[in-house]
Amino acid sequence: MASNLRTHFQQCFSSPSLRSYLAEFISTFLFVFAAVGSAISARMLTPDVTSEASSLVATAVAQGFALFVAVYIAADVSGGHINPAVTFAFTLGGHISVPAAMLYSLSQLLGSTLACLLLRVASAGQAIPTTRIATEMTGFGGAILESATTFVLVYTVHVACDPRGGGKRGPCTAAAMGPLAVGLVAAACVLATGSLTGGSMNPARSFGPAIISGDFKNHAVYWVGPLIGSALAALIHQNLVYPSYSTSADSRHGNVETVIV
Amino acid sequence: MASNLRTHFQQCFSSPSLRSYLAEFISTFLFVFAAVGSAISARMLTPDVTSEASSLVATAVAQGFALFVAVYIAADVSGGHINPAVTFAFTLGGHISVPAAMLYSLSQLLGSTLACLLLRVASAGQAIPTTRIATEMTGFGGAILESATTFVLVYTVHVACDPRGGGKRGPCTAAAMGPLAVGLVAAACVLATGSLTGGSMNPARSFGPAIISGDFKNHAVYWVGPLIGSALAALIHQNLVYPSYSTSADSRHGNVETVIV
Amino acid sequence: MASNLRTHFQQCFSSPSLRSYLAEFISTFLFVFAAVGSAISARMLTPDVTSEASSLVATAVAQGFALFVAVYIAADVSGGHINPAVTFAFTLGGHISVPAAMLYSLSQLLGSTLACLLLRVASAGQAIPTTRIATEMTGFGGAILESATTFVLVYTVHVACDPRGGGKRGPCTAAAMGPLAVGLVAAACVLATGSLTGGSMNPARSFGPAIISGDFKNHAVYWVGPLIGSALAALIHQNLVYPSYSTSADSRHGNVETVIV
Amino acid sequence: MASNLRTHFQQCFSSPSLRSYLAEFISTFLFVFAAVGSAISARMLTPDVTSEASSLVATAVAQGFALFVAVYIAADVSGGHINPAVTFAFTLGGHISVPAAMLYSLSQLLGSTLACLLLRVASAGQAIPTTRIATEMTGFGGAILESATTFVLVYTVHVACDPRGGGKRGPCTAAAMGPLAVGLVAAACVLATGSLTGGSMNPARSFGPAIISGDFKNHAVYWVGPLIGSALAALIHQNLVYPSYSTSADSRHGNVETVIV
Repeated sequence: MASNLRTHFQQCFSSPSLRSYLAEFISTFLFVFAAVGSAISARMLTPDVTSEASSLVATAVAQGFALFVAVYIAADVSGGHINPAVTFAFTLGGHISVPAAMLYSLSQLLGSTLACLLLRVASAGQAIPTTRIATEMTGFGGAILESATTFVLVYTVHVACDPRGGGKRGPCTAAAMGPLAVGLVAAACVLATGSLTGGSMNPARSFGPAIISGDFKNHAVYWVGPLIGSALAALIHQNLVYPSYSTSADSRHGNVETVIV
Repeated sequence: MASNLRTHFQQCFSSPSLRSYLAEFISTFLFVFAAVGSAISARMLTPDVTSEASSLVATAVAQGFALFVAVYIAADVSGGHINPAVTFAFTLGGHISVPAAMLYSLSQLLGSTLACLLLRVASAGQAIPTTRIATEMTGFGGAILESATTFVLVYTVHVACDPRGGGKRGPCTAAAMGPLAVGLVAAACVLATGSLTGGSMNPARSFGPAIISGDFKNHAVYWVGPLIGSALAALIHQNLVYPSYSTSADSRHGNVETVIV
Repeated sequence: MASNLRTHFQQCFSSPSLRSYLAEFISTFLFVFAAVGSAISARMLTPDVTSEASSLVATAVAQGFALFVAVYIAADVSGGHINPAVTFAFTLGGHISVPAAMLYSLSQLLGSTLACLLLRVASAGQAIPTTRIATEMTGFGGAILESATTFVLVYTVHVACDPRGGGKRGPCTAAAMGPLAVGLVAAACVLATGSLTGGSMNPARSFGPAIISGDFKNHAVYWVGPLIGSALAALIHQNLVYPSYSTSADSRHGNVETVIV
Repeated sequence: MASNLRTHFQQCFSSPSLRSYLAEFISTFLFVFAAVGSAISARMLTPDVTSEASSLVATAVAQGFALFVAVYIAADVSGGHINPAVTFAFTLGGHISVPAAMLYSLSQLLGSTLACLLLRVASAGQAIPTTRIATEMTGFGGAILESATTFVLVYTVHVACDPRGGGKRGPCTAAAMGPLAVGLVAAACVLATGSLTGGSMNPARSFGPAIISGDFKNHAVYWVGPLIGSALAALIHQNLVYPSYSTSADSRHGNVETVIV
């Protein structure tokens, strides 16, 4: 797994790997399009966006359903990360090589950016809402909350698709309940932290809106928080709660490891 | 598959084919009834319909749940298209013959029209709301957004039920998670574009309200956008992301191809 | 099936049959408790209940989720009817005997009444909201809409659990997607007709609130409409769309027919 | 099962048991974080929290989705209780030993407390909302309602994962529909009783907010009600509705009993 980096690099541009990047690109496009689009659509209905809980419901439900489907449609091709924090956790666990992880993340950031660009252009210039921290909070508090919600999300991703389980809950494909659990936990976390941090849990979800709107205020929070939470989730899941599988890290989710590792 | 057109035409009126049209009719009736009815019910509660995000949630959730069930109840009979754009994509892929596709679409348009007519008559003349483009947008922008959301929807339909996979995620029946994914991605897309284009993604969903209300303004957008997005989804799914199955196009979803092709 | 009525009558009080009635009682209690309780809870938050679409979302989601679970927890014991209209359809199809159907319906009506009574008493006298027809509509229009939505609901029940399919979509148990489809189609129909008829589709759901509040205005609509829609659904499902199974009516859902028929 | 208490006590600190407590801790953290966080986020959007049904939808959906995932991620390790009332019911049924049940409950209370503490600290001092009884109601009425909703919840938990069924609806793992049913019935019950009692059904869900906010008013209601409802559910499920399995109480959910009993 920690083997020849050059071979890894060559495999990064094999045909199945390129398909994985395309799948991540499409799925992240879908997820961010739903997240940002729903915020725009809700705002158009409620001019004073800070005064209605139904806007929060709209964007949380949109993100939850979209993430479910984004994971579902990519699961058998790329493993369905949709999130640099998830890719980071799998890199730490040795389930994906570093160069492949970088190309995964790049695909995710591009998908997110294209979604925001398309919404900006097609909607005749609606401002793209970014994830923001409530005015009474500090960036540190925001990073803690993003870290906690990302912990929960990435822990769920690991349970939904344990690389070492080998079928105990069915193979890690779109057929099982895993993608639904991942989507709905994201919806719950957006409902919980939507007014506090915007409920990102995903650097790609925050990056696209930031670059298209040009507003990078507190942007670091949406990288630092999720990456810390993600690393904690991988650590706790694989060493404390579910340590009992044989640690053959080769049988990773879907056909990713036959592809990239 | 591109074989004898006359035989196709005869098969179009076989008993299993007629059942498929009836299933499409019933399912599209259900979907459009929920879509239009929820818009009416929400409007009756909020006289100024442009000022509340909860109307958007109501109609998006209604459409998502209804599309899930519409696909679910038709999946084993007709393949569960419910949408001329989906039928168009499967025609392009060679999975359904052209005359059958036309009868599928006709059934869908009729189901949609009957749903709107019933709502109009039974509700003592409530106006039937059509899918509309936000005043600040152009028809071109609307078509781009409809194209993007339909791309996502039809791509999900292809993943949920790959004609060439042969069971990798279980057979393409109502038992799997596919119909739920299709329904919930539609809900997410309605939440994302509801205030911009009405979130149609489906010419039949726009046609029924247009014909009953007599308001065909921008109606072409809801044919051009979805058909382009749908063609793109079929192209990218079957050639780029999931090209690796054996391309035996005969083993199409459910029992459709044993019926119609 | 149309055999000895006396034997049927004796079987109606066998131990498994009594368990079926208890299961129907508990499930209908759950469903009506959620339907009526959510209407009360939403009304307490929005004094002017006619002016907010989020009340509609609250009660529709509550009914959809509750019906899913109500069917789920009763499926393996009683078949999960929860609704006299569903029981009526299965009686027409010969899948349950007439005396058993009457005891099923009685259990459902009792469960509904107890749920309303409990809410009335425990909430210190909150008025129990009944299902009502919009003032601008006629009872006839209301019956048509209730008939259409019940058609869709009961058709879905038949697809989710075809008595003649024998496992094509897995056995008709709580493990499959059927109960979820039944619950979510009910939610979609409540969203569609909530402001028009209250979205009952179920005589038991309307009966409990009527008897506890003493308000039987238009109550007949909620019997006539659902029963007609239900009969139509059974007819069309079993004769037109899904006629091809071997018509051995004995292998009915769950263990009901081993029990009651 | 009622065997040597000392052995039980030793087993309470075996490695698999410690993992179970950690799983319960994480899952209860997730559930309460979503429940309390969503109430805070909704309140920040609607200053007058008593006047909007969309706040109720937000917190009910957050709790439903979060409980689904909380049960899902813990199911294969601890059985997915997340709730002292559920643990109590399984203790009554003899499926978990008394000392283990106490450590389960302690883990749940700690997870709940940490979630509230984190929200308090990171959000720069937002008040933590507690579960409350409507001013016009008595504590007795509140206990009855909490008892009724907990009955429904715990009954669903028993059906979703019958300790004696042995696979009739698939093994009691995260792969089946069980966790979704448990989560969504909780959402329905929160919608039904949210304005009346806060819809707790779970002493741990009420304990964390009470201890962090220092407001224990009517707190006993959220222990007495759920524990009574829970005991009733275990009694009725295991003796009246589903009594027919072989009563080998050893084959309890997941790997818990191989661990703790």
